[in-house]
Amino acid sequence: MSATPPRLDGLSLLGSGTGAPGGMIWRGFSTAQDAALEPAFHSASLAELDHAAELARAAAPALAAASGADRGRLLRAIAQNLEANVAALAARAHLETSLPLARCEGEIARTCGQLRMFAETAERGAWGDARIETAQPERKPLPKPDHRSMLRALGPVAVFGASNFPFAFSTAGGDTASALAAGNPVIVKAHPAHPGTSELTARLVLDAVSQTGFPEGTFSLLFDAGHEIGAALVSHPAIQAVGFTGSQPGGLALMHLAGRRTIPIPVFAEMSAVNPVFLLPGALRERGDAIAAGLHQSVTLGVGQFCTNPGLVVVPRGADAAAFLVRLAAAFAGSSAEPMLTAGIHAAYEDGIARRLATSGVRVLARGAAGAAHRAEATLFATDAASFLRNCALAGEIFGPTTLAIECDDPAEMLAVARAMDGSLTATIHAGAGETCAEMLAGLAERAGRIVFNAFPTGVEVSSAMVHGGPFPATTDARSTSVGTRAIDRFARLVCYQGFPDAMLPPELQAANPRGVPRLVNGIASV
Amino acid sequence: MSATPPRLDGLSLLGSGTGAPGGMIWRGFSTAQDAALEPAFHSASLAELDHAAELARAAAPALAAASGADRGRLLRAIAQNLEANVAALAARAHLETSLPLARCEGEIARTCGQLRMFAETAERGAWGDARIETAQPERKPLPKPDHRSMLRALGPVAVFGASNFPFAFSTAGGDTASALAAGNPVIVKAHPAHPGTSELTARLVLDAVSQTGFPEGTFSLLFDAGHEIGAALVSHPAIQAVGFTGSQPGGLALMHLAGRRTIPIPVFAEMSAVNPVFLLPGALRERGDAIAAGLHQSVTLGVGQFCTNPGLVVVPRGADAAAFLVRLAAAFAGSSAEPMLTAGIHAAYEDGIARRLATSGVRVLARGAAGAAHRAEATLFATDAASFLRNCALAGEIFGPTTLAIECDDPAEMLAVARAMDGSLTATIHAGAGETCAEMLAGLAERAGRIVFNAFPTGVEVSSAMVHGGPFPATTDARSTSVGTRAIDRFARLVCYQGFPDAMLPPELQAANPRGVPRLVNGIASV
Repeated sequence: MSATPPRLDGLSLLGSGTGAPGGMIWRGFSTAQDAALEPAFHSASLAELDHAAELARAAAPALAAASGADRGRLLRAIAQNLEANVAALAARAHLETSLPLARCEGEIARTCGQLRMFAETAERGAWGDARIETAQPERKPLPKPDHRSMLRALGPVAVFGASNFPFAFSTAGGDTASALAAGNPVIVKAHPAHPGTSELTARLVLDAVSQTGFPEGTFSLLFDAGHEIGAALVSHPAIQAVGFTGSQPGGLALMHLAGRRTIPIPVFAEMSAVNPVFLLPGALRERGDAIAAGLHQSVTLGVGQFCTNPGLVVVPRGADAAAFLVRLAAAFAGSSAEPMLTAGIHAAYEDGIARRLATSGVRVLARGAAGAAHRAEATLFATDAASFLRNCALAGEIFGPTTLAIECDDPAEMLAVARAMDGSLTATIHAGAGETCAEMLAGLAERAGRIVFNAFPTGVEVSSAMVHGGPFPATTDARSTSVGTRAIDRFARLVCYQGFPDAMLPPELQAANPRGVPRLVNGIASV
Repeated sequence: MSATPPRLDGLSLLGSGTGAPGGMIWRGFSTAQDAALEPAFHSASLAELDHAAELARAAAPALAAASGADRGRLLRAIAQNLEANVAALAARAHLETSLPLARCEGEIARTCGQLRMFAETAERGAWGDARIETAQPERKPLPKPDHRSMLRALGPVAVFGASNFPFAFSTAGGDTASALAAGNPVIVKAHPAHPGTSELTARLVLDAVSQTGFPEGTFSLLFDAGHEIGAALVSHPAIQAVGFTGSQPGGLALMHLAGRRTIPIPVFAEMSAVNPVFLLPGALRERGDAIAAGLHQSVTLGVGQFCTNPGLVVVPRGADAAAFLVRLAAAFAGSSAEPMLTAGIHAAYEDGIARRLATSGVRVLARGAAGAAHRAEATLFATDAASFLRNCALAGEIFGPTTLAIECDDPAEMLAVARAMDGSLTATIHAGAGETCAEMLAGLAERAGRIVFNAFPTGVEVSSAMVHGGPFPATTDARSTSVGTRAIDRFARLVCYQGFPDAMLPPELQAANPRGVPRLVNGIASV
């Protein structure tokens, strides 16, 4: 931790100004220390939200018109500012989330990597999908007009970060980075579980905005102890799209609010996922012990607080599965009890475990060290396929270090379980050498955004090819991803210009291609 | 017309079978002849809908796995079958829609062009956006896994055609073609205004399905006199997405139904649009007469029954505008009264005109030949900007050959009118030589999917660069288009495969690239 922790004001950041003290106040909370953290944070007023929204609206044209190179400079400046303040950021996040300091530092590095990836995406410009069809005035029966189209910024985007990634999915995380890269102002509703981390990060984003000459409305941060400001933000006429990572009730509430607006807007909510893991007979026979060790690590990593945490493990009944479950149970029994992100998350975990303990047909195979004072007791459950298929509550997510093994009598039952799965971010298959699973693979590809083979779903590579999304209820928009370069597509829309003089076109569509973006000209790729 | 009109059964086509006679029946209707047409058409039952949905569900895996070349063969076979039956198709459509025979023939040619464009899109495979990130097992701090992703088919798609394009936006129109190209089975709810045209077209689609060896559930056509089957179709668990072209109440009803499903699905509804036209002073000065002639043609073309029909004309008050309006009024006064598509559309037109006639601040500048017996009386209205800005009803669409001129006192008022516009499919600017309009252009680009310069919005080129979409209420998904190659993106979702053996990957992601699709490999474009 740095010698002098940086000053925190606890006030919303409305462009270059701040909100007023007052309104409902609250404090961050350390579950590891069971103690509230200074200072107090002050909820924004509706007038302050209006002000932030008007600043964003005023900033939108400049951002939309900025070149990819300029947007890249902004994103790179944010990354640089974060890197220059790793110690202070990680220290505060460690306090507010009880995540290990090294994990906080690593997550800042990942966040900077994301920012630079979107900088490069903006700089290259291929994402804008510029297309040109040139005129054919002599064509019969009708002349063909010149027309050109590309993706353009939507306008102000509201971002709701997640509690479990105080950097990578929060204030300057993937949603913010991709929305800025597409040329949209961003208003972040700070996650109340890490308000100090949010304030520190937001200050560094705002420093980058002013360092690179973007208008102040490019970015604002709003605090709120409750849900009022978030709801008003999604309903505000200036807001054109929403990025959200968090719980299913939270995501659905925003989706319904957005759908009830006079002008509905898209909500890209990444919500719950159970991330089922299917272990085929050959895999258990060949390497059951290794899978047990890997699975235990995947379930308990980060106190099980990952969107991609495997919540179901489907096994074929038999001696290999029995040995595997014994091994997995031993690993669970040896789990330490670690503090969860918030007292509320811990209470919900305890609740979910208690309900599952009371479910008929479900038995406990192992529990880790006893949980107390916000610490989670890792728990391994087991049931049979018939019980699972009868009780849809068993397909629900318990957020934390627990998983449910489902024993199946035969391959047909495993397939039935696969087909009963809700939409999920991931689905995993472990197979033995030469073992085929085409039907299961096809079924899972209909239900998940990413299929993992002979590995574990936790750990989401940030790249051009990653898909972190999936069918409802994993997300509200199965066609999108919130991780990887394709995340930028969420925050843009197509605009076509027909018959325009060259000088009036956006630079990306002008004859000379002054921004050097890849384009499709009369259907042929051209740079 | 062919000597022997082809037989019509009036029954739903459930894959290769048919629905039973019974249920509510109705007939096509010729507004030109003021007469009902034989035969009777029979509404599908809910059980028949279920059967069509199950056939589609069963066909989905084969379609999703089919190569782009195979999907292309299907689409080209449909085009070929339509072309071999132009006379019969056009004759029936001419009867059912009262659109001129030549227009019906031209629309079939356009529809075949669309089918072949999507065939080529499927064959090239670039739309699938295949991306490969190869493993780096030695990378620090964590190894990078091999992962590969692409767009994959969604599953059965429901298509609701439009009354005003009995071919290009109906049974085998753009929604059907793009959904099939992406690898999805299609169930069309036939438009009740051209049931015979729908049946004839559907038979030719089904012939193509069997000629190219696709499963029968690839395509079905459902008839319904009312809304029950359409609503049940959108609510059916097998349906994964909806394409719709039609009225705003219809589109909104489907959007709300889809949002209330246990698993919500996307609805791509192209609804109403007013398509404002802005005439700058220089344009009126230089070529007011030509603009008046062109605008009159654009407003009255096809009895004004185009989604892109210009419903508002914004002019700067002055001598040039006065002369322009006199000229435009003369053209309107000379308009003949032509039969509209349906009696209901004509009644709604009369209603809209009557309401506008009674609106304070609105005056009639000219009316064409008197409308009677389903024929529309072309009508030119005028108002001033202050009246327009006070009364949001004036920004609403009246479907038919009418437009409203808005006289503005100065450029600021024109800009205010531009900023008060609802989302629209198009917005048009006419400018004089060297006349700039950067602010207005920026405002309109926020409100329309296509901006037209010195031309008219009717006539939608089918191409790689066309955007036929726009902000709500023009569509329910401003990020998409229903015309042009990009329409295929609506009916697919991203799936990522991590760590898979080559042989288990979809061919598009295998090392040898057996389908020869363009790919992004470690961020670099590669064929």
